[in-house]
Amino acid sequence: PLPPVRSAGIVGAPFSKGQVSAPFTVCVSVPVVTLALFLLQPKGGVETGPDRIRAAGLLHRLKEQGCAVKDYGNLTFEELVDDKPIGLLKNVRAVGGANRRLSEAVQAVKKDGHTSVMLGGDHSLAIGSIHGHSAAVGELSVLWVDAHADINTPLTSNTGNIHGQPMSYLLHELQSKVPVLPHFSWIKPCVWAKDLVYIGLRDVDPGEHYILKLLGVKVFSMSEVDQLGVARVMEETCDYLSAKAKKPIHLSYDIDAIDPSVTPATGTPVAGGLSYREGLYITEHICQTGLLSGVDMVEVNPLRSPTEDDVQSTVNTAMDLLLSCFGRLREGNHPSHYRLPEP
Amino acid sequence: PLPPVRSAGIVGAPFSKGQVSAPFTVCVSVPVVTLALFLLQPKGGVETGPDRIRAAGLLHRLKEQGCAVKDYGNLTFEELVDDKPIGLLKNVRAVGGANRRLSEAVQAVKKDGHTSVMLGGDHSLAIGSIHGHSAAVGELSVLWVDAHADINTPLTSNTGNIHGQPMSYLLHELQSKVPVLPHFSWIKPCVWAKDLVYIGLRDVDPGEHYILKLLGVKVFSMSEVDQLGVARVMEETCDYLSAKAKKPIHLSYDIDAIDPSVTPATGTPVAGGLSYREGLYITEHICQTGLLSGVDMVEVNPLRSPTEDDVQSTVNTAMDLLLSCFGRLREGNHPSHYRLPEP
Amino acid sequence: PLPPVRSAGIVGAPFSKGQVSAPFTVCVSVPVVTLALFLLQPKGGVETGPDRIRAAGLLHRLKEQGCAVKDYGNLTFEELVDDKPIGLLKNVRAVGGANRRLSEAVQAVKKDGHTSVMLGGDHSLAIGSIHGHSAAVGELSVLWVDAHADINTPLTSNTGNIHGQPMSYLLHELQSKVPVLPHFSWIKPCVWAKDLVYIGLRDVDPGEHYILKLLGVKVFSMSEVDQLGVARVMEETCDYLSAKAKKPIHLSYDIDAIDPSVTPATGTPVAGGLSYREGLYITEHICQTGLLSGVDMVEVNPLRSPTEDDVQSTVNTAMDLLLSCFGRLREGNHPSHYRLPEP
Ligand SMILES: [Mn+2]
Ligand SMILES: [Mn+2]
Ligand SMILES: [Mn+2]
Ligand SMILES: [Mn+2]
Ligand SMILES: [Mn+2]
Ligand SMILES: [Mn+2]
Repeated sequence: PLPPVRSAGIVGAPFSKGQVSAPFTVCVSVPVVTLALFLLQPKGGVETGPDRIRAAGLLHRLKEQGCAVKDYGNLTFEELVDDKPIGLLKNVRAVGGANRRLSEAVQAVKKDGHTSVMLGGDHSLAIGSIHGHSAAVGELSVLWVDAHADINTPLTSNTGNIHGQPMSYLLHELQSKVPVLPHFSWIKPCVWAKDLVYIGLRDVDPGEHYILKLLGVKVFSMSEVDQLGVARVMEETCDYLSAKAKKPIHLSYDIDAIDPSVTPATGTPVAGGLSYREGLYITEHICQTGLLSGVDMVEVNPLRSPTEDDVQSTVNTAMDLLLSCFGRLREGNHPSHYRLPEP
Repeated sequence: PLPPVRSAGIVGAPFSKGQVSAPFTVCVSVPVVTLALFLLQPKGGVETGPDRIRAAGLLHRLKEQGCAVKDYGNLTFEELVDDKPIGLLKNVRAVGGANRRLSEAVQAVKKDGHTSVMLGGDHSLAIGSIHGHSAAVGELSVLWVDAHADINTPLTSNTGNIHGQPMSYLLHELQSKVPVLPHFSWIKPCVWAKDLVYIGLRDVDPGEHYILKLLGVKVFSMSEVDQLGVARVMEETCDYLSAKAKKPIHLSYDIDAIDPSVTPATGTPVAGGLSYREGLYITEHICQTGLLSGVDMVEVNPLRSPTEDDVQSTVNTAMDLLLSCFGRLREGNHPSHYRLPEP
Repeated sequence: PLPPVRSAGIVGAPFSKGQVSAPFTVCVSVPVVTLALFLLQPKGGVETGPDRIRAAGLLHRLKEQGCAVKDYGNLTFEELVDDKPIGLLKNVRAVGGANRRLSEAVQAVKKDGHTSVMLGGDHSLAIGSIHGHSAAVGELSVLWVDAHADINTPLTSNTGNIHGQPMSYLLHELQSKVPVLPHFSWIKPCVWAKDLVYIGLRDVDPGEHYILKLLGVKVFSMSEVDQLGVARVMEETCDYLSAKAKKPIHLSYDIDAIDPSVTPATGTPVAGGLSYREGLYITEHICQTGLLSGVDMVEVNPLRSPTEDDVQSTVNTAMDLLLSCFGRLREGNHPSHYRLPEP
């Protein structure tokens, strides 16, 4: 269950002063697009997540399990001087512009025929990642694994954080509810509510709950995970998404879907999350479909936890989830050419 | 799934020297009766549990989710000077008297038409809470969620702690096994063994195990939770309790039912408990029956844990369980009148 | 569900300088054979595991639940001066010799008609334990609960640790793949691949994965535990093992099967393990079969964890698993002669 091996090349793009720098990685067969915007997180720190995941050995481990990896390094762009709030909304122009860049990067990755991996950064980056993915390959199934629905419109949001709103910009059905915003006009809605499944929800705003019910979105909140078990959740998820057509799958994984006892280094932890094992079961199962075409791994924030142990547990979990997206199985793997040595 | 909203008023009753003071709360539509007896816990501290749950924002959060709350404050009564042990039994007269006061308070709450919430304090307070509840509304179903069965008779108990015995005073079937005790004569047994279900047991004394088998009590120990899963346990629980008649449900929740890794601030922690999620699934499911008429939340003991983090985790879990008893769902909630804002 | 009671006698054999001493315990009805080889663990410390489990009260607790216990103390043997590595393989002669002694000890225990309990020590001791068990009673079913498959041959191993290889010496089917080693010639393979079941695997080497697939070994990795739940895993395990004949069961329990958050004091912890509850469910279920004839409890290493709390949690879990092997139930137990006291 491993993707075909290709040649690999790494491109680095270090942070520099006076710029908003964002890790940005593309692989040949496992392209890694990493992008973090510290502007987007008032608490700061999320921009260091991707480099920590790299430093933990993601590229080496992916290669070891048979994937050829090309790392395109960090996406870099200029800071915006004049980005005043629009109502409650913060950093509108920066987020809009960064996602436009990210969308283009992901399109390039997909046009090269690779599975795209975007390491965030915060979850507002799903706008560009999903937009670019869809622009390149057409209609998508989206599996959103998160404690939060991230489907507030700019008008239902109580915080003004765009990372709580990305799905509202992407869903066809919500466009009449979303106001015009500067640097957002390039976004074309590209996902249908029927092609979206949530897993892990447990902190949903009233407006978000209303929207989910209104649009009939398929949701496996933690209640349903408790009721059905993660195995049946994944079976029903895949049945639901492939009922009519087998569209390429975009997996948008917010690390806060996992329980904070396992992944505490994140901005908005919520008690009662997925276990490490349930988290892995999801990626193992999605990998087996053969339809995984793009992955976001977001909200790993090394500065949001008191101890280095907490950071390592969070980073290692993110890495294990990604390894599992690309074929690693807990039962073990062996190359097809393996031969048992004899005395 | 929210109870009807009424007006609310809070009554406070602070601790005062020379008195056994116990938090005691009643709400209009969500009456909270809190009672803690530091005499009853040789280890001390359990009397501060209710005020910590209040301070964590219980009343505000209940109101926020559409419940009108009246807080009747803390039940207060005089200390008993002469309360010598009777055999092994400790604080017999104090416990008897306090429960009599509590029973009357809960009766008043129920006669006003409210769901009663008793915040302990230790689990001996279930005597008064269940007695008063039943005196007001008639026969009850009792769901006892606990690591312990709390069904020792005064003669099978090895410790003399009355908080390990409350069910023995309440069950019709056990009265021939219970000796006469001072300040206990007012208690009329009011629960039938067939109307009692246990969830979470994992530390059961030999005498208790004998009684449970003798009376054929329905028990889902942690083994059965492991075997069936919490969803089927709740399904079978509700089927069992409503097989003949749909009696009002009294939920007596000992926080030590939950695993000590989540709720360490309690007097007798036992490894291998319910997860936070399983704990919530129970309350979500009981709320959905529409039959929940009284709740005890007991054994939260802020002084029984080394760190403030441990206390907060315990208190927050107790609060989340109570919010879920009154309609909070992990999938989210929205008011029936919600309207989605448009640009 | 308790084994018949017999008389008990404890034999002690303390450590002494210049010797490799290994705890070694045999009980009359619950024989405890403990053996630890600090030579075998380059990290050291695993030889103190058995005495910590004793100190936690294993013998007392077993007696309390109706088992007569005879403790034969610690197996002691001389250190080998000249035990140079053979290729990568470390301590070959010491491990070979120690296991030969252990095999003889277990045979004696079984010939006295007891259930054998071997407290390790590292998992290489399963060679002697299973060999001796089988030599005494004939063909066995082996249930191996572990994060690791421990089925590398000396030629597939990348580390040279024999505790990652014991099953390769025991399986009939692998003998053509195992080279001749000094002090290993006494070992006669005694287990068939069809009589072996694994539970808990999540860190399997490529060569091991190849072997498991080649031999068609029944494996419930953590993926299968997630998929089926531990209850169905145990049902399928027992169905599988008793499909043709009901052979005596040898349970080889590596404490690292349990999640490191519960049992951190072990040499090679791996994230995503069995919960404490799942761990207990396995032993409860195996006990109920009535076929349990030998148990290994290995890899408890008190020196491998930073805090005393971690050691206690690990040791207590090992003890709870053993108590459960010998009849302890979470729903409670009572003696058959129990009589309820009356006033
Ligand atoms: Mn998110
Ligand atoms: Mn989130
Ligand atoms: Mn209790
Ligand atoms: Mn309890
Ligand atoms: Mn092992
Ligand atoms: Mn192991």
